[in-house]
Amino acid sequence: MDDHYVVGVDFGTLSGRAVVVRVSDGAELGTGVHAYPHAVLEECLPAELAGSALPLPPEWALQVPEDYREVLKVAVPAAVAAAGIDPDQVVGIATDFTACTMVPTLADGTPLNEVEGLADRPHAYVKLWKHHAAQAQADRINELARIRGESWLPRYGGLISSEWEFAKGLQLFEEDYDAYERMEHWVEAADWIVWQLCGTYVRNACTAGYKGIRQDGDYPSPQFLTALSPGFGSFVSDKVEHPIGELGDRAGALSAEAAGWTGLREGIAVAVGNVDAHVTAPAAQATGPGQMVAIMGTSTCHVMSASVLREVPGMCGVVDGGIVSGLWGYEAGQSGVGDIFGWFVDNGVPAAYAEAAAAAGESVHEHLTRLAAAQAIGEHGLVALDWHSGNRSVLVDHELSGVVVGQTLATRPPDIYRALLEATAFGTRVIVETFRRSGVPVEEFIVAGGLAKNALLMQIYADVTRLPLSIIDSEQGPALGSAIHAAVAAGAYPDVPTAAKQMGKVRRHVYLPDQTRASAYDALFEQYVALHDHFGRSSTTMRRLKAIRRDAVARRRAATQEED
Amino acid sequence: MDDHYVVGVDFGTLSGRAVVVRVSDGAELGTGVHAYPHAVLEECLPAELAGSALPLPPEWALQVPEDYREVLKVAVPAAVAAAGIDPDQVVGIATDFTACTMVPTLADGTPLNEVEGLADRPHAYVKLWKHHAAQAQADRINELARIRGESWLPRYGGLISSEWEFAKGLQLFEEDYDAYERMEHWVEAADWIVWQLCGTYVRNACTAGYKGIRQDGDYPSPQFLTALSPGFGSFVSDKVEHPIGELGDRAGALSAEAAGWTGLREGIAVAVGNVDAHVTAPAAQATGPGQMVAIMGTSTCHVMSASVLREVPGMCGVVDGGIVSGLWGYEAGQSGVGDIFGWFVDNGVPAAYAEAAAAAGESVHEHLTRLAAAQAIGEHGLVALDWHSGNRSVLVDHELSGVVVGQTLATRPPDIYRALLEATAFGTRVIVETFRRSGVPVEEFIVAGGLAKNALLMQIYADVTRLPLSIIDSEQGPALGSAIHAAVAAGAYPDVPTAAKQMGKVRRHVYLPDQTRASAYDALFEQYVALHDHFGRSSTTMRRLKAIRRDAVARRRAATQEED
Repeated sequence: MDDHYVVGVDFGTLSGRAVVVRVSDGAELGTGVHAYPHAVLEECLPAELAGSALPLPPEWALQVPEDYREVLKVAVPAAVAAAGIDPDQVVGIATDFTACTMVPTLADGTPLNEVEGLADRPHAYVKLWKHHAAQAQADRINELARIRGESWLPRYGGLISSEWEFAKGLQLFEEDYDAYERMEHWVEAADWIVWQLCGTYVRNACTAGYKGIRQDGDYPSPQFLTALSPGFGSFVSDKVEHPIGELGDRAGALSAEAAGWTGLREGIAVAVGNVDAHVTAPAAQATGPGQMVAIMGTSTCHVMSASVLREVPGMCGVVDGGIVSGLWGYEAGQSGVGDIFGWFVDNGVPAAYAEAAAAAGESVHEHLTRLAAAQAIGEHGLVALDWHSGNRSVLVDHELSGVVVGQTLATRPPDIYRALLEATAFGTRVIVETFRRSGVPVEEFIVAGGLAKNALLMQIYADVTRLPLSIIDSEQGPALGSAIHAAVAAGAYPDVPTAAKQMGKVRRHVYLPDQTRASAYDALFEQYVALHDHFGRSSTTMRRLKAIRRDAVARRRAATQEED
Repeated sequence: MDDHYVVGVDFGTLSGRAVVVRVSDGAELGTGVHAYPHAVLEECLPAELAGSALPLPPEWALQVPEDYREVLKVAVPAAVAAAGIDPDQVVGIATDFTACTMVPTLADGTPLNEVEGLADRPHAYVKLWKHHAAQAQADRINELARIRGESWLPRYGGLISSEWEFAKGLQLFEEDYDAYERMEHWVEAADWIVWQLCGTYVRNACTAGYKGIRQDGDYPSPQFLTALSPGFGSFVSDKVEHPIGELGDRAGALSAEAAGWTGLREGIAVAVGNVDAHVTAPAAQATGPGQMVAIMGTSTCHVMSASVLREVPGMCGVVDGGIVSGLWGYEAGQSGVGDIFGWFVDNGVPAAYAEAAAAAGESVHEHLTRLAAAQAIGEHGLVALDWHSGNRSVLVDHELSGVVVGQTLATRPPDIYRALLEATAFGTRVIVETFRRSGVPVEEFIVAGGLAKNALLMQIYADVTRLPLSIIDSEQGPALGSAIHAAVAAGAYPDVPTAAKQMGKVRRHVYLPDQTRASAYDALFEQYVALHDHFGRSSTTMRRLKAIRRDAVARRRAATQEED
């Protein structure tokens, strides 16, 4: 296997990254990255595609499918070239994707926005995971499921997210019925990209379970869907249902067209699609019970396997074999983490700090981290809620928003920066404690993703959660995880855990909790919980503010149109 | 009177301003300003006075008395020179001051920090109005007064502020008993500066009433003070009590020494001291019932006269003749307003906005105001609490702090800026509604101070309060008000209202409320009130955060000292 290679491709929020990995030991030999030309569409459609820059309402987040194909055409050949190998030595390719990211397609997989006459319709585009405009639909799904006592609801912590297939699908149905009718498949991007590679549409068990409400082989019933909205009863049978592939399975063979795009050999194994978070667990050798993997980037996904089935309030979901075959895969998440820090650096830090950072040869993040690290715990007098992108776990409410309490005229940017770092750690602690109380204890916390580099942040997480922190020993965890799946799909290993043992990489217990610091954080965490429960469970203020904002934007747009 | 002039001197938080005013018509002929060299001491004592830069605990705010004398020496001659008049034509001088700002002195008025061997003791310095480190003492005063049913308590809205004479005095007594023993008078800076001018210590009725708990001629009893702290029973008789002067009275004649400082004639009238806010009412011709004057600068003071005595919860106080003789003078306030906007501009706005402002020839304040003004009401999706310096009215709690709720990754600096502007307007509405509900209706809102220039802010206030807004027609309201008092002290007019009619200036009903906008603000105000009542009346989070911060700072300092 020493001269056999696989390619893992990780489709993130802003770019795709391909990595060439040696099958025998997981060595990462070459990387290629390609940024999506259209990035995330949040303000308007791109004029060059839609004819005009049609504005989008608040909370929308779309993408352009051709950007994903470009990653195959650009990043994969670049990775192979960087690795300095013969492309013919590549025996398999696998991909992972953000989720729940949905593509509306024709029967042959053509995305609706590529269909003549539909490019100017927002609903024809990909709805990215962080498209949060379907909260009203999610609310109705949850209310109806609760009233009807649907058996699948507890498998999702009692709440279906506005990010998922059914809420986004119902929004499409209700807001653009014509596009809904034209759509023949409502496809996870994770499966759409595999479809592009091998010409076969296989629905992966992971997203079908976590995002598609598939439990014990079934989906929500036509009766439920009809009760939700007349005419929506055939949503599953018409648009969603499709043959399932298990993780690590072979979806098909690389097509001639995709071989042309990637430069790889036609006919090599293409693995079933996967999710960026879930695929990272084997990359960190974390396939056993009690090992919670946190993939910390713009947002954080928590995945953990367990031998028991439990109902964890506010988890994203529990799926049989959702991470590793034979175990229950649990998922939880925080909607915003690194993007909150990035937002603050971009929008809340005056020039003096940027100049001081430049003078010290640091990024602004590094500079603020250094200043924040010099503080005693609690010295900033602040506690923040990390809900700038809403709350995924354990409240599952994207109408929630961010807040920093305790600001005075003495508050400075490093204070707020540190409070935001801590808030995300507190958010993680709420998740860990909820799992523990539900009978799914977390024993080890394993971090993957770009934020693992921030030593202050990692130590805060160890202290706040009182858990030993291990760090994945790869810069590209999801792509490595995909490569592991590619190796299994190509038949190089019998199953994913066996491949993970050979190809995965982790540094164990890099950060250990300190009892004195942990106790100091307890006092702040107590206030975090007070705010969490007030704004998340009692007060309606955050929801009202979002409603007021939507009304105000609509009024202003109406007024502007009248003027035109 | 056409060739008679008076000088009004306004002692603000960061500088003193002298204005030469014509007695006949209030024409302002010349101005001189002098910034206090030591500004506000919040971090440490000045090394050149104290021998070393001794650090101060959080919430402290001190000043240096010699800085005030410098204003007499620099700003007054500068104003006379700018006016181009003969100094001998000046017939009187009057001053107003921030309050409650307290000077501990010897029997002859020497401030303790000027006494040999005391310059290195924080408690020997002036405690500025915004010294907020005596909240624990204020809490005990309030609790004891409530339990004992002290008759004076309702005259202060049910709560004595940590900013006032008794809380600050008790802190001095308990934290530096030696300095307390050396102190022979606990003097309002408003009276100390008059003492410097005429050599006579006269305690003005305004601060004695509002800040010194003098009601119906009496102070809190020795029994009350002893119950507060053994040994504190003679605080009033030993340190506070002193002959009272009514507003507009002559305190004495300008001394030879002060004539030397100011360049004015020895022997001219020196008026009884006054407070910057209260003295502004006659400058705006607002001496009648229902006319609320808001002096809007770093903080806002609200003053209004009424013919009835009512108990308004959370007002700062009601004093017989506290603004105008013959009427009950009501005072309320917001601890932070302009300084919150300034703090945000200094600490929360990235370079791009400063650059765009410079390119457009605007200040950053003007730039953010222009961007904020383009928004529909509620479009930012935010609601803030304007408590970055605590809350004076109606909660009277300086342990409270600022908060902005509703932040998302789409939130930009102009959004937060506008939310902060609105928050201060909502804070004013809470005060106006509390007055109204207590039987002291507000009919007209008259704005003085630097913030009157911000048209967006003024329109927000009119819309939020549904009151017509008038604007004082002087750039230097307090100094003009002082000049009016100087004219009365000099015998040019029989009383302050008569002088105000000739010398005061106002533009009536410059901003009128719009019903549509007012209704839109109602929705945000509802959320403001929800936050106000949660954080101000139910939650202990803000108080806990301040306590955590104090502990953390103390721990870090102890650790640092150990290292040394």
